[in-house]
Amino acid sequence: MTRRAAPDRDAVSELTTGRLSVYLRCLMYLETIGQKTVSSHELAERFHLNSAQIRKDLACFGEFGTRGVGYNVEKLKETLVRTLGLDRVRNVLIVGAGNLGMALADYRGFNSNGFNIVGMLDIDPEKVGRTSRSGVSVLPFDRLNDIVRTNAVEIGIVAVNAESAQSVHDALVAAGVVAVLNFAPVQIRLRRGVKVRSVDLRINLESLAYYLKNVEDGVGEEED
Amino acid sequence: MTRRAAPDRDAVSELTTGRLSVYLRCLMYLETIGQKTVSSHELAERFHLNSAQIRKDLACFGEFGTRGVGYNVEKLKETLVRTLGLDRVRNVLIVGAGNLGMALADYRGFNSNGFNIVGMLDIDPEKVGRTSRSGVSVLPFDRLNDIVRTNAVEIGIVAVNAESAQSVHDALVAAGVVAVLNFAPVQIRLRRGVKVRSVDLRINLESLAYYLKNVEDGVGEEED
Repeated sequence: MTRRAAPDRDAVSELTTGRLSVYLRCLMYLETIGQKTVSSHELAERFHLNSAQIRKDLACFGEFGTRGVGYNVEKLKETLVRTLGLDRVRNVLIVGAGNLGMALADYRGFNSNGFNIVGMLDIDPEKVGRTSRSGVSVLPFDRLNDIVRTNAVEIGIVAVNAESAQSVHDALVAAGVVAVLNFAPVQIRLRRGVKVRSVDLRINLESLAYYLKNVEDGVGEEED
Repeated sequence: MTRRAAPDRDAVSELTTGRLSVYLRCLMYLETIGQKTVSSHELAERFHLNSAQIRKDLACFGEFGTRGVGYNVEKLKETLVRTLGLDRVRNVLIVGAGNLGMALADYRGFNSNGFNIVGMLDIDPEKVGRTSRSGVSVLPFDRLNDIVRTNAVEIGIVAVNAESAQSVHDALVAAGVVAVLNFAPVQIRLRRGVKVRSVDLRINLESLAYYLKNVEDGVGEEED
């Protein structure tokens, strides 16, 4: 708060955790192909990142780099897994079994490696009893409290329309959920002790429009 | 590239355009409730941002602030709309009419205010001829070239599985699309002159896991 022109803390921490997630994906890939060490330069090349930024980000997590050799892939991966809190499984509950809820239930990475989707809730009796392609069941919304308690659900995903999002968020919090991922295009009123991360997918389209506009204006983008 | 410890350019520019998008949403909301001016302090309060950051971001776009009065809502909104390239409609084509494609076709903000979804393509003959809830039609994938040309499609959305993502991306680019939003959990091989933005939804879950881990560790989060 006191450093001059510092970006807001949430944005910085989300940017950093986002980059750590990217590094983790790369390390996991390198592990599957049997690579034992990797340099910040190689990580940078592979992910179109800045190698100085990588060294800066990873410097906070102790010394894994050896000059001229690079990082130990396995050790750095394990450290990032622990840092990101992915070293134990967290139970996740999706509310809303429409197209979005179904897509999220089957989305690769939402139901593996640290996350376990216990089910999808919906108020529509026609949807209850169905299962997603990958086998996540649709359960009645009125079982929310029971399901959160029985499964020790930590993360709730709001995949309902904008009109219902706040009440679904409130119900999740009342049931004991402390972290919420909101996909509804609405600002959730925050409560102390509950972390809400809202995903605004339109921002991605606007970022592409900004690129297109710069191309039209002849500003273009410098190629690395 | 030369400033010490500068974050990579893509991340910075995406972070900034993301914030401009957030400011724009706020200004549009203020316009609907008839508010004529807004201070950086009020914008910061409403969006849990840093008012110094807001002033810094908006300083690049000329002088819209008057000390003690704040920004002119309408003028600043119009400037951000132009800056983000949203002052004309761009045609968008979705490939993949599964749950994700359907969810995106109906996602608020994907088919309005600067973006027009011309259709959804799929190779599955059973899906062709259906329409999403909001009325976006599913068309045969083999009409890709024709549809891109006829509609001057600028943005393609890849909403297929990881295995098909690269070939769908390549087909979009071959048809003339220059900006691609990729939802498949796979790294797309980039081509000069084509902008790809990949959305990795798992990063949002990892960010929540990081929060939960810090709470467990007693690090917590400082409340503003």
